[in-house]
Amino acid sequence: MKKEKKSALSVKKGVENAKTVNENSVLRFKKTKKKLLSVKEFSEGIRNGDMTVLSKAITLIESSKPEHQKKAQEIIGECIPYSGKSVRIGITGVPGVGKSTFIESLGIFLIEKGRKIAVLAIDPSSSRSGGSILGDKTRMEKLSAHKNAFIRPSPSAGTLGGVARKTAETVILCEAAGFDTVFIETVGVGQSEVAVSSMVDFFMLLMLAGAGDELQGIKRGIMETADLIVINKADGDNVKNATLAKAQYQNALHLFPPAESGWQPKVVTASAEKGTGIKEVWNLTDDYLNFTKKNNFFFEKRKLQAKMRMYETIDETLKNRFYNNPEVKRKLKEFEELILNGELSPYAAANMLLQITDS
Amino acid sequence: MKKEKKSALSVKKGVENAKTVNENSVLRFKKTKKKLLSVKEFSEGIRNGDMTVLSKAITLIESSKPEHQKKAQEIIGECIPYSGKSVRIGITGVPGVGKSTFIESLGIFLIEKGRKIAVLAIDPSSSRSGGSILGDKTRMEKLSAHKNAFIRPSPSAGTLGGVARKTAETVILCEAAGFDTVFIETVGVGQSEVAVSSMVDFFMLLMLAGAGDELQGIKRGIMETADLIVINKADGDNVKNATLAKAQYQNALHLFPPAESGWQPKVVTASAEKGTGIKEVWNLTDDYLNFTKKNNFFFEKRKLQAKMRMYETIDETLKNRFYNNPEVKRKLKEFEELILNGELSPYAAANMLLQITDS
Repeated sequence: MKKEKKSALSVKKGVENAKTVNENSVLRFKKTKKKLLSVKEFSEGIRNGDMTVLSKAITLIESSKPEHQKKAQEIIGECIPYSGKSVRIGITGVPGVGKSTFIESLGIFLIEKGRKIAVLAIDPSSSRSGGSILGDKTRMEKLSAHKNAFIRPSPSAGTLGGVARKTAETVILCEAAGFDTVFIETVGVGQSEVAVSSMVDFFMLLMLAGAGDELQGIKRGIMETADLIVINKADGDNVKNATLAKAQYQNALHLFPPAESGWQPKVVTASAEKGTGIKEVWNLTDDYLNFTKKNNFFFEKRKLQAKMRMYETIDETLKNRFYNNPEVKRKLKEFEELILNGELSPYAAANMLLQITDS
Repeated sequence: MKKEKKSALSVKKGVENAKTVNENSVLRFKKTKKKLLSVKEFSEGIRNGDMTVLSKAITLIESSKPEHQKKAQEIIGECIPYSGKSVRIGITGVPGVGKSTFIESLGIFLIEKGRKIAVLAIDPSSSRSGGSILGDKTRMEKLSAHKNAFIRPSPSAGTLGGVARKTAETVILCEAAGFDTVFIETVGVGQSEVAVSSMVDFFMLLMLAGAGDELQGIKRGIMETADLIVINKADGDNVKNATLAKAQYQNALHLFPPAESGWQPKVVTASAEKGTGIKEVWNLTDDYLNFTKKNNFFFEKRKLQAKMRMYETIDETLKNRFYNNPEVKRKLKEFEELILNGELSPYAAANMLLQITDS
C-alpha cells in the first residue's frame, strides 16, 4: 500500500499546484494517521473531486482487511447514486502494441474536448511484474500530469475475479469524482478481457499490422469480442501494411457472427505517436454509443452488468471464505499435485476439501 | 428420470438382441426397485459395457438428491482408473447447421473403423425445449441403433456449471465402459462452448456457407476457439458457395491469434448427407491429435483440465449451498428486480445476501 500511495502521489508531479495539494493531504493523513477519514468525509471528498481522497478510498477497496472492505462498501454505497454517468471503454492489446501511448493520445484529445479521464487497469499477472501500468504511467507523462486525468495502477495481487470486482468498484468512485470517461486497460493475454467486457460499454482491441509475430500472445476469442479494432503504429513505412491489414480485418469481421448490440465492428488505422486516427477512433466510439443508446442495448447491457456484479460479488466472497480456510489452503496444494500426477480424482479431491468446511 | 429411462431404452431398439437385454435389465430393476445397485455392481456393470447400468449411473450423476450424488461420486471414483483413454471431441454449431446428421455420419464412419462412440450434450437451455438432443436422437437413427454407439440427452435442468460438471463426469463413465471416442455436442449460442472446450481435446465448429443469416445466433468468440471449422451442407448448388467460404475462412483464420497448441486451425467442406468430407474431417482430427501428442500439449491440457475440474466442482458446490438457502432464494429475486431498476447497489445486495448465511 505504501508503494501505491507513493505512486498515486507521483502521478500529480507534473501538475503545478499538485505538490501543495498533496503535501496538505499528506499532512492531513499524517495528523489523522490512526483515525482514518469517516465514510462521510470519504464520499464528500470524492464527490468534490479530491484525488487524494479518491486514491485513499481505492486503496481501501483493494485492501483485504475486513474492516477496510466494510468501510469501502459503505463509501461505494454513498457514491453509487452519483455514478453511472461516464462512458466506460475497455482497451486491450499485447505489450508492444503501444497501448500507453495510444491511451495518452486519446486521453489528451478528449481532455482538450473538455472531458475528464480516468485510466484503470485489470492485470492480475501484474503481481509478478510489479504492475505493468506503473510502467505505463511513467510513459503517459502528459496525461498523468493533467489535472483532469487520473491514472490508477492495477491492484497488485489477487484473483482475476477479485481484481475485476475491485476495478468495477473503482469505476463507481471515479464516476462519483466527476470523471466522465473511464478507460479500463488489459493486456488481453488471459481471461481478463472477459472480465473487462462485463464492465464496459465499448471494447476496443489494439493491434499491429501483419498477422505474424504480432499476434503471438493474444488470447483467442478476443478479436471477436471487439467493437473496434485499431491498427496502431500506422506511420512511416508501416502505413501501407496497416492499410492492407485494415482491409483484411474488415473482410474477416464480416465472417464473424454479428454482435448482440447490432453494431458492425469497425477497423481503423491510427498512429498514437503521430496523433493520426485518434479523432476517427473517438468518432466511431461516439457512433457506437449513439447507436446502442438508440436501440436501447447500452442501457440493457448496463442493467445486466449490474445484476452480474451482484452474482460476481457473491461468488467471489464464497470462494474467498472457502479458500482462506487454513486447512483447505494446506491440502489444496497437495491435492493439486496428486491430481496433476493422475493419483487423485478431481471430484474426490473437491469433496474432501468441501468436507473440511462442512463441519 | 422416467423419460430418460424410456429414451435410453429406445436407443437400443435397433440392436437385435437389445430388447431381451433391456427387458432383463428392466426386470432386474423392477425386482430391486427399492434396492439400488451397489457401487460395486454399478462399476462392474459399467466396465463390462452394460449400457443399462451405464444409463442408470448417469441418472445418478444427474440427480440432485444428496444420496444419489454421494453414490455417483463413489461410482466415478471406481471408474476413474479406467477412464481417460478416449478421444474427446467437442462439436458445436447452431440449430439448422446439420449437427445431428453430421455426428451420425462421422459416428458411423468411425464405428466402421472399429471405434466405439458416445455422444453427449451440454445444453442448459434444453430444460425449456425439453432437450434438443432428444430430438437429435431420433434423427441419429443409424447411430443410435448401433450397439457400439451410446447417445445420451443433455441433463434436462440446472446451471451451466452443473450441466458441464455432470457431462464431464459422464465422460469418465463412458470411457470406463469402453467408448474410445466421445463427442460432446453444444448449440454454441451461449457460454456452453467455454465449458466444452474445458473438457475436450479437439473442438470443431460446424457452419454453413455464406456469412449472412447463417451466422445469426453463434456466440462471438467461438470461431476463434475452434481447431477445425467444417462448412457443412457442401452439396448440390451449394458446393461453389461452400468452397468460396472455405477459402474466406482460411484467410480469416490466419488473421487470428495462434492457438496455444501450436496448431493452425483448419477449414474443410463436408456434406454429412452425402457423406463427403467426413474422412477428411477425421484425418484432420487425427493430425491434430498426433501433433499435440508429439508436442505434449495434449497431455498438458488434460492435466490442466483435471485440475480445473476440482476447482469447478468446489465452486459449483459452494454456489449450490448458498443459493439453495431458502431465505437467499426468497430475497434474490426481489434484489435482482431492485438492481435492474437502479434502486439497490449490487454490492449492497450481495452483502445482505451473504449475511444470511453468515449467521
